[in-house]
Amino acid sequence: MINRLVEKIEQMEAPIVVGLDPMLSYMPKHILKKAYDEKGENLEGVAEAIWQYNKGIIDATYDLVPAVKPQIAMYEQFGLEGMSAFKRTVDYSKEKGLVVIGDVKRGDIGSTSEAYATGHLGKVMIGGKEYRGFDEDFITVNPYLGSDGIHPFIDVCKEEEKGLFILVKTSNPSSGEFQDQLIDEKPLYELVGKKVAEWGELHMGSSYSYIGAVVGATYPEMGKILRKLMPRTYILVPGYGAQGGKAEDLVHYFNKDGLGAIINSSRGIIAAYKQKGYEKFGEEGYADASRQAVIDMREDLRKAWMASK
Amino acid sequence: MINRLVEKIEQMEAPIVVGLDPMLSYMPKHILKKAYDEKGENLEGVAEAIWQYNKGIIDATYDLVPAVKPQIAMYEQFGLEGMSAFKRTVDYSKEKGLVVIGDVKRGDIGSTSEAYATGHLGKVMIGGKEYRGFDEDFITVNPYLGSDGIHPFIDVCKEEEKGLFILVKTSNPSSGEFQDQLIDEKPLYELVGKKVAEWGELHMGSSYSYIGAVVGATYPEMGKILRKLMPRTYILVPGYGAQGGKAEDLVHYFNKDGLGAIINSSRGIIAAYKQKGYEKFGEEGYADASRQAVIDMREDLRKAWMASK
Repeated sequence: MINRLVEKIEQMEAPIVVGLDPMLSYMPKHILKKAYDEKGENLEGVAEAIWQYNKGIIDATYDLVPAVKPQIAMYEQFGLEGMSAFKRTVDYSKEKGLVVIGDVKRGDIGSTSEAYATGHLGKVMIGGKEYRGFDEDFITVNPYLGSDGIHPFIDVCKEEEKGLFILVKTSNPSSGEFQDQLIDEKPLYELVGKKVAEWGELHMGSSYSYIGAVVGATYPEMGKILRKLMPRTYILVPGYGAQGGKAEDLVHYFNKDGLGAIINSSRGIIAAYKQKGYEKFGEEGYADASRQAVIDMREDLRKAWMASK
Repeated sequence: MINRLVEKIEQMEAPIVVGLDPMLSYMPKHILKKAYDEKGENLEGVAEAIWQYNKGIIDATYDLVPAVKPQIAMYEQFGLEGMSAFKRTVDYSKEKGLVVIGDVKRGDIGSTSEAYATGHLGKVMIGGKEYRGFDEDFITVNPYLGSDGIHPFIDVCKEEEKGLFILVKTSNPSSGEFQDQLIDEKPLYELVGKKVAEWGELHMGSSYSYIGAVVGATYPEMGKILRKLMPRTYILVPGYGAQGGKAEDLVHYFNKDGLGAIINSSRGIIAAYKQKGYEKFGEEGYADASRQAVIDMREDLRKAWMASK
C-alpha cells in the first residue's frame, strides 16, 4: 500500500491528502435540506448529509489526489449513524481508487491494539468467512504506550500490506508540553521518531516503509530534523493552511527525491467555498471550489519546491 | 458523576470496575449458538452474542459493583455491528444504575478532541433537539498531545458533570519506553501526573476531581509516588489479576480514607468460568462465575487493605 501511495503521488504530482473532516457548519444548505427531507432532521439525516457532502468532494477531486484522510472523530460525534457515514466514506473512496488514511489515533496495550488493528486494517473470521470492520488502508496511531502497543498494528499491516502513520510531533500549540521535553538533551519527539524509523524496518516497501510518521506543518524546524532521523519514513503532515503551516516551510519534510511527505489539508479544501478567493463558486458549487483549492494547493507546493532548489 | 462513583464505591465497599472486554474466545457456546441462530453467523450474530454475554454479566454483578468499563476496541473490531453492541452495553449498564467508564483512549488536537468529547460524553443539537452519540459517564483519554487536546474534554465534562481518566502510567510491559524517560531527573509519567492534578483543579467534585488518572497495577512503586503527586485524583487501575497486579500492591493506590482508586478486572471476572477454582459453574453458569469472581476480588482487596493498616 505504501508503494501504491508513492506511485500515485508521483503520477499525480500531488503529495496531497484531502482531510475529510466534515463539520455541520461547513455543510451547504441544499445538502442538509435534501438529507433531512429524506431521512429526518436527526442523527440519520446528519449522517446522510455528511455522506452526500463527502461524495461531492470525492467525485470532484479523486483524479487529482492520491489519498483522503477521514478524521473519525468528526463522524464518531454523531454516534452509530456518524460511524456508518465514516464507513460509507471509506468504502466509496476506495471504489474511486483513493488510498484511505483513517485518522483514528488509536493505541492501547497489546491485546487491545490488536483489536483496533483488526477493526481498522484487518479481518475477523466468523464461521469460516472473512469479515472486515472499517477496512482503511492506513491508520494513524498514538505511541504513548510504547512498542508492545505498536507491534500488533504492525503485525496486521504485514498480513494485509497496509500501513500506519505514528504520531511523532503533532501540529497543535500545546504539542510541546510533553513531546518537546528533553531526555538526555534530546526532545521526546526525536526519541519517538527514532523508534518509528526502527519499527519501519520491520515492514519495508520498495523505497519507503509502510510505517510512517505524523509531523505537524507548524513546526518546520523540527520537521527538518525528523526528516533526517527517519530517512525512509513517509511523513504525513497536518497543519497546512488553516492551522498556519506554509508551503515554503514544507519543503524540509521532503527528501531529495521529492518524495517522503504527504501534506494534509482539510478545511482549506473541503470548505474552500467559504473562503476568500472562492466566493464565485457559491454553496451549490462547494465541490468545484474544493477541486480548485486542490489545484491551487498543488501549485503552491510545486512553486515552493522549485524555489527551494 | 465522580461524587456518584465515590458514593457507590463506599456504599458497596467495592472499589471495583468490571472490564467488559468481550472476546469471541470467552463466549460460551450456548450464547454464540443462540445469537447465530437468530441473526446469522456473521458480524450481526457476533454483535448479538457480545450483547447477550455482557447482559448476563451485568445482571449478575450490578448490585455488587459501582461501575463497568467496556473497552471499545473489543467492539470496534467487529465494525458497525460491534459499535452497536458497545452502545447497547453502555445504555443497559446505565439503566441498571452502573457508572460507565468508556475505555476509548481518544485524544487529538483541539477541534478534534471536541468532536470526540461530544460523541462520548456530550450531545449535538439538530433542529433544536438534543442527540447523544455513545453517552458514557467517564472516558479514558490519551495525553500525548498536551493541554489543548485535553481542555475540550474537560469543557464537555463540566457541562455534563462527567469525567475523564487520563493515561499517566499504563500497565503494559513497554509502557516505560516513553513514559519512564527522565526529564529533569523525573520520569515523564510524573510530569503527566502533575498535569493531571492541575487539570483536575478545573473540575472538582466534593472530595475528588472529575478528572482522574490511569495508573497500571503492574507498577506499584510508581503508583505510590503518583498517589502522593495527585492527592485528589481518582486513579483507575488496570492490570489486576491476569496482567499480574496483586492486591497487596494495590493498597498504595488508595488514600488514607480508603478511597481514591478503582481497580479494574476484565478477563478475571468476565471469563472467570474458564479459570481455576471456577470450573464448577461451567459454561452455562458463566455469569454466576463472574459474580463469584467479583465477591472473591472484593475479599482479596479488603484483606490486603486490612493487612496494610
